Amino acid sequence: MAIDRKEQIYSTARTMFSERGYPATTVRDIARELNMQAGSLYAHIGSKEDVLWEIVERAALQFIGVVAPIASSQTPPADKLRAMVRAHVLVVADNLDDATIFLHEWKFLGEERRAWVNERRNLYEGFYRRVIDEGIDSGDFAAHTDAKMAALLVLSSMNWLPQWYNPAGPLSPEEIADSFTQTILKGIQAPQY
Amino acid sequence: MAIDRKEQIYSTARTMFSERGYPATTVRDIARELNMQAGSLYAHIGSKEDVLWEIVERAALQFIGVVAPIASSQTPPADKLRAMVRAHVLVVADNLDDATIFLHEWKFLGEERRAWVNERRNLYEGFYRRVIDEGIDSGDFAAHTDAKMAALLVLSSMNWLPQWYNPAGPLSPEEIADSFTQTILKGIQAPQY
Repeated sequence: MAIDRKEQIYSTARTMFSERGYPATTVRDIARELNMQAGSLYAHIGSKEDVLWEIVERAALQFIGVVAPIASSQTPPADKLRAMVRAHVLVVADNLDDATIFLHEWKFLGEERRAWVNERRNLYEGFYRRVIDEGIDSGDFAAHTDAKMAALLVLSSMNWLPQWYNPAGPLSPEEIADSFTQTILKGIQAPQY
Repeated sequence: MAIDRKEQIYSTARTMFSERGYPATTVRDIARELNMQAGSLYAHIGSKEDVLWEIVERAALQFIGVVAPIASSQTPPADKLRAMVRAHVLVVADNLDDATIFLHEWKFLGEERRAWVNERRNLYEGFYRRVIDEGIDSGDFAAHTDAKMAALLVLSSMNWLPQWYNPAGPLSPEEIADSFTQTILKGIQAPQY
């Protein structure tokens, strides 16, 4: 069935892009892996870049989709940040290849698509900065907190995750998320009197 | 002069490995960039993997070389961690391509060399874990601190740096290092009475 074939192509491309990188993966490589001719593969996809684009776009929308509702909820800032990191880490843990491609291979997209990704990354980083700003305004977080750098610390902890996370390891995604968030939250909390 | 030629080859390889990845860079690509024949390039290098190996090995030894003396010094744990992160971030900021290759392309080395890198990475991570353990023992850091996860948070903040650091940006490497360390140190410090 055509839809299954497309799924197979995407699944193979996903593994190869993640393992050896987009520039080193040719449509011929993907076809060979599936015992197809490169020509008949083009009946299912537009171009190699279109496959990359679909993976990156889907990942971007997934991250935004799970985190945006939490970011705009009426929860206290610390709880919000905790829930946002949990949601993000769960997406990464369930989609390690997609996360790797989203984080490292997106730069091989064409200019317009790269611009789209950059806008979404800024939007996404903004969710974290704004929650930290809310916490500074509410007095939960220290007044001198640098929201940009604190957000970058949160994002770094999450973005490095695909490099070391092992689904068979001792820590669940939730435990990893909570461990990082707990340290960072304590690191930016307002002085306790 | 032969040595200059070798330097040019490494410099070109470094840029290409970092920008498009090791698997997508051929010896022919490197030669073409230098207006050389692939054959005459082999007069200066053993193999493509040898070039990768030399870059990765040098980076590993550089990170260990700047951080090990601090890690084994008699400084208080918090000061030590601050100095270690500063030293690491300065190396990254001065060698962005090497850092990227060390962090992402090393996995394309052969098995024995990968094992060597893994040993060095574990050693390096150990420096951070041990300083955090020292801080727990001395009572500077909270008794319940998970040294492994705290070290991973420090390493994540440093390892994500090549993806966003801009030498022309507003923050110096020292300011970036200090901002991350300050938050993490406050996040793991012992309760203040």
